[in-house]
Amino acid sequence: MSVQMLRNDRADPSAVALVVDRLRARFGDRLSTAEAVRRQHGKDESYHPPVPPDAVFFAQTTEEIAEIVKLCASHKVPVIPYAAGTSLEGHVAALRGGISIDVNQMNRILRVSVADLDVTVEPGVTRRQLNEHLRDTGLFFPIDPGANASIGGMTATRASGTNAVRYGTMRENVLAVSVVLADGRVIRTSRRARKSAAGYDLTRLFVGSEGTLGVITEVTLRLYGIPQAISSAMCSFPSVDAAVDTVILTIQSGIPVARIELADQLQMQAINNHSKLGLPVAPTLWLEFHGTDAGVAEQAEMVQAIAAEHGGNDFQWTTRPEDRSKLWQARHDAAYANKTLAPNKDLWATDVCVPISRLAECIHETQRDLQGSRILAPLVGHVGDGNFHLTLLLDPSDPEDVAEANRINTNLVARAQAMDGTCTGEHGVGYGKIDYLEAEHGEALDVMRTIKRALDPDNIMNPGKIVRV
Amino acid sequence: MSVQMLRNDRADPSAVALVVDRLRARFGDRLSTAEAVRRQHGKDESYHPPVPPDAVFFAQTTEEIAEIVKLCASHKVPVIPYAAGTSLEGHVAALRGGISIDVNQMNRILRVSVADLDVTVEPGVTRRQLNEHLRDTGLFFPIDPGANASIGGMTATRASGTNAVRYGTMRENVLAVSVVLADGRVIRTSRRARKSAAGYDLTRLFVGSEGTLGVITEVTLRLYGIPQAISSAMCSFPSVDAAVDTVILTIQSGIPVARIELADQLQMQAINNHSKLGLPVAPTLWLEFHGTDAGVAEQAEMVQAIAAEHGGNDFQWTTRPEDRSKLWQARHDAAYANKTLAPNKDLWATDVCVPISRLAECIHETQRDLQGSRILAPLVGHVGDGNFHLTLLLDPSDPEDVAEANRINTNLVARAQAMDGTCTGEHGVGYGKIDYLEAEHGEALDVMRTIKRALDPDNIMNPGKIVRV
Repeated sequence: MSVQMLRNDRADPSAVALVVDRLRARFGDRLSTAEAVRRQHGKDESYHPPVPPDAVFFAQTTEEIAEIVKLCASHKVPVIPYAAGTSLEGHVAALRGGISIDVNQMNRILRVSVADLDVTVEPGVTRRQLNEHLRDTGLFFPIDPGANASIGGMTATRASGTNAVRYGTMRENVLAVSVVLADGRVIRTSRRARKSAAGYDLTRLFVGSEGTLGVITEVTLRLYGIPQAISSAMCSFPSVDAAVDTVILTIQSGIPVARIELADQLQMQAINNHSKLGLPVAPTLWLEFHGTDAGVAEQAEMVQAIAAEHGGNDFQWTTRPEDRSKLWQARHDAAYANKTLAPNKDLWATDVCVPISRLAECIHETQRDLQGSRILAPLVGHVGDGNFHLTLLLDPSDPEDVAEANRINTNLVARAQAMDGTCTGEHGVGYGKIDYLEAEHGEALDVMRTIKRALDPDNIMNPGKIVRV
Repeated sequence: MSVQMLRNDRADPSAVALVVDRLRARFGDRLSTAEAVRRQHGKDESYHPPVPPDAVFFAQTTEEIAEIVKLCASHKVPVIPYAAGTSLEGHVAALRGGISIDVNQMNRILRVSVADLDVTVEPGVTRRQLNEHLRDTGLFFPIDPGANASIGGMTATRASGTNAVRYGTMRENVLAVSVVLADGRVIRTSRRARKSAAGYDLTRLFVGSEGTLGVITEVTLRLYGIPQAISSAMCSFPSVDAAVDTVILTIQSGIPVARIELADQLQMQAINNHSKLGLPVAPTLWLEFHGTDAGVAEQAEMVQAIAAEHGGNDFQWTTRPEDRSKLWQARHDAAYANKTLAPNKDLWATDVCVPISRLAECIHETQRDLQGSRILAPLVGHVGDGNFHLTLLLDPSDPEDVAEANRINTNLVARAQAMDGTCTGEHGVGYGKIDYLEAEHGEALDVMRTIKRALDPDNIMNPGKIVRV
């Protein structure tokens, strides 16, 4: 998609100027039009061209956001929420200009209930901040997308990560949100009860809506008891098929793995380069088990037996925290380690997800498509969910690199969709994946458009993301 | 709410007559206007006054339903989906007349994937039929609302039941649905991948929409491996508080109970009457554990220790299938057993759900409200989720009984809502709970109304349920 095209559809400059003046008069320094601030707020961690907003407002309360959205609505000026800026599909790019609402100062943990295993936070709270806050309660929030993302952003993009296979994604773990709608009204989507059949599931409608239906200002999350015991394991396999078959059988057997992660041969090479390790350069699984002492031992032993049947080598498992950390460090460093394969290149993370029965086939065909390519593309995957990422190593200023990366990604998405999979398992749509939704959803995309139009008739909420109207 | 009021808003009789004639010409016997058939299709298992549709169509394919909805849309004739008829809030009552679409002949299991742990079924498949079909695969579908409901109806009402505490509700277990929209278009809401961040969560929008946004014609569900071992336990407590505290501590400890059910003293009396048992007439918990042999033993022992700390008596646990069946039979008979308390009365099931920290208090206040009441009201609860049901025993032809039952239910709902709970944990809204949503959702109810209007502008899809437009 052409960013330029969208930039031609920018909001009326005089309306923007009026809104900026009003906000400056009302909020002083908390409204910034400084070049550097605007630039920072139009850019996420993706390779997609950034687009700065016209101004940035540093919000402190829901009421302020409601006031600003009302003002923007009356002048048809776009509103783009911003928190950690760790999104990967250009979610924060101000494609039509407008006001970026930075919620980083809204970082209070509003309440924790140990009895109910839930917490309500402002959207600027990061997942690490939340877990540090929770440590003394014996509870934790499991969703871990890798980056130290904000809870608001994770909610808005329906994030997940390494332990979704056990704990679900943000879809399963958000109990309720407070949202400022496109007309400035504030709603709360649900009560705090664990389940409800009282009408349409507005919570799930806003989870993953990427700021296109409203600005999320509070999030109530499920929490979990910190497991009594954790064990971790690592094992290499003769082929991706053997690793994936191990995963399938593990899950079918009802072994409640907390994490089950795959890296391919090239990714293992990068990890060895980076961490000066001598790990086998072969498809590798990392696993984590949560439970009681006896339970995690039993789980590890069961998976060890399954892995052995599939040619798994040197299955190592441990409950010692320092060994676990070392084992997982290699996996956590995977993205950065890829830099060692091509130090001057940038990283572009792809994100398809397929039914697990098609996973090995999808990876094979993808690796075949990569043969002879100018682009190196190591692979990691949250394979318990059928979700994997190629990291495309490219020079964004080299048109041949960009063209080849686009070719690879477009083929990958089409391949996943042909296997009843999705163009994005966890990164979201932003404007980077917007052109893939038609093939994925067909007429259902029109239903999304109908909902967008009904709830944001002037298309001011993060316009140009998810659906075009 | 007055049914009479809504009946005055019936569809134009000449439009209905025209649609009925066309359908009869096209489908012959599969369109019925017989009094008995119409009556049956306007009535569910609730105490709410039934309202028969003008005609009943026995559908066999998605395409037929699309054709009929198109025809009904062009004449603004209501469409009400019907399957097992086991709903509890008047969901199938044809408040404005129209065509009931009976999907019981759409009862094929379209595909099962053992590797992906999922299945796609037509909406008339019942949960027992599904589990019988799955038996040889080693998989099962856990959601158990008690009745042998249809998967279509369970999806439409966001049903759950005894093991939602472990496996979630229909919200967590529906991967995708095919839906005939109000204009006759057919969409599929999602790919079959386990997770996706590709746009608005239409699946969750249709789960729990009770036929008001479209007719569900296919459902893809998550499945689970049948656990290697199952153990069950039963234990009585000196008070509801002690039982609930046991539940809270069990869940906080991360013990993955598959079921944890409460019955109060009066309910236990009814069970003893009915089943000629000598169970302690005291607040009682039933539990079930799923896992490995070692795992279920460990879980049972951990809960036994927690129960003992809270004065739990005679904690019995067993893995023997015949003992487990006997133990659970008492719980399963609970509803019917209530008839022994007042043989000539009908049953009215209430359905609030509160954060578990408020559960004991909510039950206490409710029992206080029942003191001296003419209505007997035994209690059972899916207490791991904070969800409980009073069964109100009333004579629907006695205005004093009806008035008192209404008073109890209205107080109960207000009490639950004041505790950040919901008027319905699992039964849904239908037309029986429609007047409680304003207090529960505030402005968010208007967002539901906006969505309803956008997707069903002529209000033909099960009108008068969930939201009034």
